[in-house]
Amino acid sequence: MLISELILRTFTQNIFIAMGCSEYHADLAADVLIKSDLRGIDSHGVARLSGYVRLWEKGRINTKPNIQIIHETATTATVDGDAGLGLIVAPVAMDIAIKKASEYGSGWVSVRNSNHFGIAGYHALMAVKRHMIGFAMTNASPLVAPTFSNERLLGTNPMCYAFPAGQYPPVVIDMATSAAANGKLEIAQRSGKQVPEGWIQDGQGNYTTDPHALKSGGSLLPLGSDREHGSHKGFGLSATVDILSGVLSGANYGPWVPPFVSFLEPPANPPGLGLGHFLGAMRVDGFRPIEEFTADMDNWISRFKSATTNDPTQKVIIPGEPELEAERDRMANGIPLVDSVYQELNELAVKFGVTKL
Amino acid sequence: MLISELILRTFTQNIFIAMGCSEYHADLAADVLIKSDLRGIDSHGVARLSGYVRLWEKGRINTKPNIQIIHETATTATVDGDAGLGLIVAPVAMDIAIKKASEYGSGWVSVRNSNHFGIAGYHALMAVKRHMIGFAMTNASPLVAPTFSNERLLGTNPMCYAFPAGQYPPVVIDMATSAAANGKLEIAQRSGKQVPEGWIQDGQGNYTTDPHALKSGGSLLPLGSDREHGSHKGFGLSATVDILSGVLSGANYGPWVPPFVSFLEPPANPPGLGLGHFLGAMRVDGFRPIEEFTADMDNWISRFKSATTNDPTQKVIIPGEPELEAERDRMANGIPLVDSVYQELNELAVKFGVTKL
Repeated sequence: MLISELILRTFTQNIFIAMGCSEYHADLAADVLIKSDLRGIDSHGVARLSGYVRLWEKGRINTKPNIQIIHETATTATVDGDAGLGLIVAPVAMDIAIKKASEYGSGWVSVRNSNHFGIAGYHALMAVKRHMIGFAMTNASPLVAPTFSNERLLGTNPMCYAFPAGQYPPVVIDMATSAAANGKLEIAQRSGKQVPEGWIQDGQGNYTTDPHALKSGGSLLPLGSDREHGSHKGFGLSATVDILSGVLSGANYGPWVPPFVSFLEPPANPPGLGLGHFLGAMRVDGFRPIEEFTADMDNWISRFKSATTNDPTQKVIIPGEPELEAERDRMANGIPLVDSVYQELNELAVKFGVTKL
Repeated sequence: MLISELILRTFTQNIFIAMGCSEYHADLAADVLIKSDLRGIDSHGVARLSGYVRLWEKGRINTKPNIQIIHETATTATVDGDAGLGLIVAPVAMDIAIKKASEYGSGWVSVRNSNHFGIAGYHALMAVKRHMIGFAMTNASPLVAPTFSNERLLGTNPMCYAFPAGQYPPVVIDMATSAAANGKLEIAQRSGKQVPEGWIQDGQGNYTTDPHALKSGGSLLPLGSDREHGSHKGFGLSATVDILSGVLSGANYGPWVPPFVSFLEPPANPPGLGLGHFLGAMRVDGFRPIEEFTADMDNWISRFKSATTNDPTQKVIIPGEPELEAERDRMANGIPLVDSVYQELNELAVKFGVTKL
């Protein structure tokens, strides 16, 4: 089923307004979700809307947050999201980073007391629109075990780096720091397929290809999969995201990050507030004239695009390019929704008394 | 053979002075190399000294560089290293980042026209000493192929993130963005052993376990090893390092980064100057009081150290801890040198007329 971007956007705005968001906040949150669907990252778009609703029903999301700076210098700040939607808190925090960068060259904001913020790429790209380099990361519910452990202590903790280019689209590196994102596991679960070795382990710490292993104490593996192939590096990257997002802001971190699913209660005696993000912006012209930089970016991109490949039908993919292609296609032709998501959204429509899809 | 830290340091200083470095620069460069040996990263310590000498003999290293800021804002700068030793240029640039951070909360320096800078951890730890979070990366000679390609277009491009803690030592994530560092390959070459699948490919892009495959057109693989296990993420991280270090500064990038080995000539018509680094510092107290941060860091570390493991003799390793243990051991007991390095160093002593080891 294909739904037009505009219809899906209006629908999503209406749900957020019905939840009590201001019109401005509802527009912003819908923009983040719809951007995810447009870019082909279906796991983080409107498919998650009912999840946000359930968290709100449990009182774990505040739709009228007082988002404020609680500590700052000229180029750094800590923002308290007041348990608001990460979809709103993160762009507000990124705006602060961008303002500081406009004035001083760079701006860095650590966020506490927030919730899941959608795709990291959305926030990083806010900087790119202003000729800045964008950084965005967030910690997340624990699903990943550090190297040598069989305990879930880290989220899939994504990091995103986004760079403006000239003639080419921006380079956007937006990646989970686990070997496989949780969304890929969910696809395997739904289709009844096994997953490759190196994605997950069972509760005893042995490789398994059963995509349901996480339900019986298993865990995702860090990027690198095992020690021999560098899983300690994936662990280190995930730790970096956790520290910059959680420890630096005063949010929760590690196993204390509250779960996204509403049927799991947040851990008792948490050391911080909500979950955390880390957002940053640096002006390109803080380093060199923007035209020089974008000319070299174009040269970089075109050199990598023309790299020789073993299989001539398989080209090197510039990070961010497939997502932009999806965006163009889906803006023109509509956003595909699987039946279960379509039904779930229409059940939300009934619940909140808004127009169905 | 074990050599005391002080003897090896003095020896290394003497070589750099004989090459024409000022006393201050010689001390600094020796400090970076010796720190690498102390921390157990033998591949980046004095074992590389003869490599630096050969580059200098070819006129590709300037031992009297005029290191200067060529562009800046309050919190950003581009530094031209004037073809100096990266071992000197990088700490000078990091000092600039730290000064900006002291004043404005954060400081970021992109460096062009430099050479190999030793271990990234040295530079990042300069910030940690001042209660700051340290960032250090560098691009390097092309040895790594992007996902789907069989061309060497990227270096092992390390990234380092370093965080101060309280009772525990700093957390230092210092990692090549390839599946395996080149040093590990060299160890396998010397010992005549095969390497695991997933580290390298041959010139046709097929997995190989032959550690000599790079000599016949093979390449290292990005962290993740193959597409299914996330090698596009390793490629993305390596690209991030290349862009922040090379493109942002006006250094060379991708396949144009000049080789470390002196018997290979730098590529013709390079787009930039030398190779590039990216260094940054953020004041912890730009986000929250340092005592609160370090208390949470200690809690983070102690929780991860006590994680359950499959094999109870194998504990979770906190990044930076093994290196600190090596440092304590080697400060007390001396730095082990393999025979070939010991001989090479004494040949340098003869060449420059300095006291032998």
